[in-house]
Amino acid sequence: MTEKTIPDIVIGRLPLYLRALQRMDQEGRQVTSSQELGELLGISAAQIRKDLSQFGEFGKQGTGYNIEFLIEQLKKILKLDQVWDVAVVGAGDVGHALANYKGFENRGFRVKMIFDNNPEIIGSKLGKFTVKDSKQMGKIIREAGIKVAMLTVPAEVAQAVTDELIDAGIKAILNYAPIRLSAPPNIRVQHIDPATHLQRMTYYL
Amino acid sequence: MTEKTIPDIVIGRLPLYLRALQRMDQEGRQVTSSQELGELLGISAAQIRKDLSQFGEFGKQGTGYNIEFLIEQLKKILKLDQVWDVAVVGAGDVGHALANYKGFENRGFRVKMIFDNNPEIIGSKLGKFTVKDSKQMGKIIREAGIKVAMLTVPAEVAQAVTDELIDAGIKAILNYAPIRLSAPPNIRVQHIDPATHLQRMTYYL
Repeated sequence: MTEKTIPDIVIGRLPLYLRALQRMDQEGRQVTSSQELGELLGISAAQIRKDLSQFGEFGKQGTGYNIEFLIEQLKKILKLDQVWDVAVVGAGDVGHALANYKGFENRGFRVKMIFDNNPEIIGSKLGKFTVKDSKQMGKIIREAGIKVAMLTVPAEVAQAVTDELIDAGIKAILNYAPIRLSAPPNIRVQHIDPATHLQRMTYYL
Repeated sequence: MTEKTIPDIVIGRLPLYLRALQRMDQEGRQVTSSQELGELLGISAAQIRKDLSQFGEFGKQGTGYNIEFLIEQLKKILKLDQVWDVAVVGAGDVGHALANYKGFENRGFRVKMIFDNNPEIIGSKLGKFTVKDSKQMGKIIREAGIKVAMLTVPAEVAQAVTDELIDAGIKAILNYAPIRLSAPPNIRVQHIDPATHLQRMTYYL
């Protein structure tokens, strides 16, 4: 089989398809169509069919997609047929929220540890976690083989912490700090930016 | 002029263009191209040109886009040539983080008030805010004419609070609860969902 490069914008839509399909599955549904998915997500049915066809033949003209099967396939494509351990860096408000977040269940991720550099916080309990010393961060992450981190430190130190994480073997960073991070091309960075979400809505007001 | 409907997926890309342009502007840059924007954002240059052309003629073949002018135009299109007051509902971890968030500056939004239903929290100070009683929420939001809310309440109550917000005149909701909200078609809802961001990255690991 030839490796072909799938545009990142296509990859970015797959989690949206997966989320919609998992919701349908929870509602006990068994079959859906690109039309229905498209209406739910505000994406054209043709686009959805084109995106999915890049990875194989997942549905039949006229009979639609088997929801459970398509969920399994998307999980395999996105490497979510395993659970990824995640390190949270920064035990402030957002770190607290992420340590207790219910939205990762059954979606491929599990918060495994949380770090902070504040001596008053290090060693304290945060949900089921004990906050670890960020001085040990590199060593602990490397030994645990963790590849995914969520970064909730102040903007001023976000780049320095990012460099350390990459050094420790982290390959994917979800950044909550309002700053753009530099990283080598083989490191994935996504940015949680509430302002862009709000800006997408004001157009309609 | 004829009104034409722009697909929501196009609207969703405009804040990304705006953010990239504002960063260039902060770096003192004056001109950019659809190629450069495309490489920064992982979107094809042709797509960017097509998106922008839906709203007018913003650049010239060969000379590129004037950054300051394009920022102004995008702000106008997205109705960000004004500052929108925002109500935060829920003064837990995420509410705290949003009340103190530095990332809204110069992006069209200002947190104006924060509500909670916990008697121990109501009346307490949160940054420069005093937490208001959510029993008064509908009345206060309506009187202040606020149209935009960020919802950081537990998933179990998120729909009930949403209904109340819509009743009070809220037209755009940024939802942090890990639950899908039902709302009439004239109400915009966006969902902050860290799991979909993480899922987009594991594909590459």
